[in-house]
Order: sequence, then structure tokens, then C-alpha cells
Amino acid sequence: MSAPEVFREKSLMRAWSRYHRFQGKTLALVPTMGFLHEGHLLLVRTAKSLADVTVVSIYVNPGQFAPSEDLASYPSDLAGDLRKLSAAGADAVFCPADLYHSSPGDLPIEGEAASCLEDDGSGHETWIRVEMLEKGLCGRSRPVFFRGVATVVAKLFNIVEPDLAIFGKKDYQQWRVICRMVRDLDFAITVIGLDVVREADGLAMSSRNVRLSPECREKALSIYRSLSKAKISAEKGQKNSHELKYLVKQMISEAGGKIDYVEVVEQQGLQPVEEEISCPVVVCVAASFGDVRLIDNVEINI
Amino acid sequence: MSAPEVFREKSLMRAWSRYHRFQGKTLALVPTMGFLHEGHLLLVRTAKSLADVTVVSIYVNPGQFAPSEDLASYPSDLAGDLRKLSAAGADAVFCPADLYHSSPGDLPIEGEAASCLEDDGSGHETWIRVEMLEKGLCGRSRPVFFRGVATVVAKLFNIVEPDLAIFGKKDYQQWRVICRMVRDLDFAITVIGLDVVREADGLAMSSRNVRLSPECREKALSIYRSLSKAKISAEKGQKNSHELKYLVKQMISEAGGKIDYVEVVEQQGLQPVEEEISCPVVVCVAASFGDVRLIDNVEINI
Repeated sequence: MSAPEVFREKSLMRAWSRYHRFQGKTLALVPTMGFLHEGHLLLVRTAKSLADVTVVSIYVNPGQFAPSEDLASYPSDLAGDLRKLSAAGADAVFCPADLYHSSPGDLPIEGEAASCLEDDGSGHETWIRVEMLEKGLCGRSRPVFFRGVATVVAKLFNIVEPDLAIFGKKDYQQWRVICRMVRDLDFAITVIGLDVVREADGLAMSSRNVRLSPECREKALSIYRSLSKAKISAEKGQKNSHELKYLVKQMISEAGGKIDYVEVVEQQGLQPVEEEISCPVVVCVAASFGDVRLIDNVEINI
Repeated sequence: MSAPEVFREKSLMRAWSRYHRFQGKTLALVPTMGFLHEGHLLLVRTAKSLADVTVVSIYVNPGQFAPSEDLASYPSDLAGDLRKLSAAGADAVFCPADLYHSSPGDLPIEGEAASCLEDDGSGHETWIRVEMLEKGLCGRSRPVFFRGVATVVAKLFNIVEPDLAIFGKKDYQQWRVICRMVRDLDFAITVIGLDVVREADGLAMSSRNVRLSPECREKALSIYRSLSKAKISAEKGQKNSHELKYLVKQMISEAGGKIDYVEVVEQQGLQPVEEEISCPVVVCVAASFGDVRLIDNVEINI
């Protein structure tokens, strides 16, 4: 397997994509923030099976982190990532140093004045808002998160110009936000969501898992166990969303997790289902163990 | 001159564009709201001189009109437009019936719930905000205008996939909003702004001009006269922005115009220049004569 081509410049990345598209090849993009695990590599292998050439982007997007969040401690290992992507057969890797027109710390504050001159005061100021889908679930505790995700993904789409883009459904709300953005803005891109990939013991794969202590990692298994139990319970006839949420909250709390939210929402618009479940739903969880915030979910197709 | 191809469907429009790009041709887009005048046709002729094929879009975008505004009375004449575009040599015209996923009256209100089912409640909800540039000038009295403009232009860019897009600088703020959006979201598109095209007597060409009574039309000449006088005054040494604004306001008010704003702003970020002018500026005006709101501007390059 030959090593992927690595691009740090937008213009070179786009030229490579266009070269391949001009030859009639289809192109898949797998956007990541690096520190790749088996879940990412499954996205890459799926991309390869669906398109002629596969591009993986690696970029920890400052636009989706609030100042209080874990941007600085987000793990990275570019050399390791490139080895894994080479083995997985990625054709190109796009890993820009910066994608914005100002340094991460300089993202403009609403209402802040721009300078008189283009060259010394014109920071990034364009944001894509998916106004309903961005609000609930993770959007409540992370108010700038999804505008940052939507915006950076649109930038990557415009740089790489893929035919397909592949996301993990572990980040369920993110996946729905991207699907809606692509539809609403008429991007000529097919968005594909792949099921959550789990460790042997059920923990959803995440780059953040390495930050869990062994003790917290064991306790964090309560997330998947509770979600599995809720799914089985619903399939056996328990249609009351309060009961299902209670079951999940109880198990995670008892294990020592600090719950951000447990919600039962319909699968398209992610609107809460407050009473009886009567459409396909997804049970979404965000909870912290130690200082590591984890998310997970399970779809229930009734 | 052969008649342009006319497309009403996004997918057919995109297929036509891709067919030409695949042959190595460059493509220019001229976005319009129809009811074309000589200003639009200059954009088309310029597009033809810069690109191999030229697409003109005609779409009165409900996303940029507030409920109180003149969407319903916006003039249209598709048959006349097609004749003019044929004579001007446009290669294709894109005139969709609707570009959004819900009827114009159904654009979602912030916070409104989405339905449980994709098919009966999933309206358009993705908006592009150019957060600083959208606020001043026309953005103050038309708060949803520029998010509507940026969003529909992004949609057109993603459908037509042009190399160039050409706008008139009569809508100066719109042009700057689009330039900034293209830069910030990495669209692979060169944006070109053309100078204001005027009638023989100086009135800036606008589709709205037909709604002016002969008397109002005469009075509306005060806009261009005042802007010309301000420009000459500045070039002769009057650098005080208050004095220049006063001069413009005075002349328009005396002619019976109702002023929305008169501003002196720097040309890139459109930030107000309150005292001495020391960088390239543009004097921007919005004023109503009768019930017709007109805008105009003049650049002063100091």
C-alpha cells in the first residue's frame, strides 16, 4: 500500500481533487480531528469501497470549541495517524495548519469592530447556522459548537469538493446538522452516516477515551450498558420516554457519571419525544467521567 | 445569437454546468432577481468577456425579504428577460420556481418545532451569517436581508458551480458580504464587482425604478447629485465625514426624500468613518421617494 499524499495548503489540496475529478473519478471525504482510532478507519475503508479516491482531513477546528473547552488538551498524533491512514489505504490527507483568516484566539467577538484595512483586522466572520438542529442536546451546553462544525465542514467541502462525505453516527447530532446543511445549501454531496464503532466491552470509540483513567473507563461502560438496556426495554414494549430516560440516567449516575443530558428524540429533527414513542427515535447521552465528557447514542426503530 | 438554454430544475442546471466544466470551459454566474435592465446586461456582457460560458440566474429570493417588505410587488417579466438575455448572449438561464424546502410563507421561525416526520415539517433552517458586514447600513433596517442574500448565493454557487460570479456595486454592502463569505467559506470562486450603471440623468439603474412616479423619479435624482457633490468636495479637500454626510442628507431631504441612512464607511469592512477620512471610503445612501426605497453609493479613493 503506497503512502497517501499529504497536503497542508488549500490550493494544492483542491488542485489534487480536481485533477482526479477531471479524470472522471469519484471522491470521498472523511473529515476528522485526528488521533485516529478504529472507528475512523472504518469510515476510511467504507469511503474506499464507495468512491474511487479517498481524502481524509485532519484538523482540530478551533471554531467549534468555546474558550472553556478542551481545545488545548485535545489529543494529537499526526505521525501515527499517517501510518494508520497509509495502512487503511487513504489516497490523500489534508492537514492544514490553520483554516481561518485569523489565529484561533482571535476569532471575532460579535459586535467587535473590524479594522480599516483588509490586512490587519479582517478576521473570519462567516458562520453557518442550522438553526433548529443546533439548539438541543449538545447545543445547549456547547452553544457555538455546531455553528463551528457546520462552518468548518462547509470549508472542507469547498476545498476538497468531494462527491461523498462520511461521518460517524456516534456524533449523531453533528451528522444530522451536516445532512441538513447539505440539503439546505444544495451542496452536491452525498452524506453517509456509519453506526457507532465500539470497543470489545461496548465503550463507543472516541479520541477522548485515552484521557480516561482506568477506573473512569470502567465506570464509563455504564453509558453503553444503560443504552442497550433501554433499547431492549423499548423493543419489549416500554414506549414511555420518561421511563427509558430514567433507566439510563439511573445507571450512569450510579456508576458515578455526571450527566449533561439524556434525551429521547426523533431521528430527523431531533425534537424531544416527551411521552409515548411513536416514531423512530434515538436515545442520546452526554456524561462526564472525571474531566472527560463522552457522548453516545442508540437508535430505536419503532 | 442563439437563445440561452433555460433550466428550472437544480439538477439539470448542475448537469449542464458540469458538462461544460468537464470540457475544460470556465463558467461565470450572474445572479439576478430578474426584471433586467442595462446594468444587469453589462454584468452579462462582462461575464461573457471573462469566461467561456455564462449563466444568469433569475430568482426573487423570499429568504431576503421581511414580511413587511415588497416581495409581492417586486416587478417581474420573465419573457422580456429571456429576450434581453438572448440578445446579450447568455448561454444558460436558471430560473427555478422555488429554491427552498418549504413555501416562502413557511420559512421557519426561530425556536419553532420541527415535525416528527421529514416529509411534513422540515423547512429550510440553514442560514449563513456574515456577522459584522451584515449589521450596518441596510442591515439595520433590514435585519434578515443579508443572511438571506448570503444563503441564496451560496445555494446558487453550489448548484451552478461557477468559476466567476459577477455582482453590481450598486448593492455595495451585498457585494462585500459575498466577497467575505467566499473568502471565509473557501468557495473556489472569483467574485467581481462592477461599477454602478446609471441612466443618462444619473439615476442608478434598479428594477425598482419602474415603480417611481415621474415626479418621484425627478426628485430621486437628488441622490446621485448629492453623492457626486460629496465626491467632488472630498477630492477638493473636504475630509470631514460629518460635513460630507450633512451635504448629502441636506440635498436629498430638500428634494423630499425620506432618508434611511447616509453613511461614510471604509470600503472593506464597511465600518463607519466618523471623523477625518484617511482611507478609501464609500458614501452609501438609502432613501425612499414615495413608497420606493432606493440605494446608491459612490467610492472616494483617498
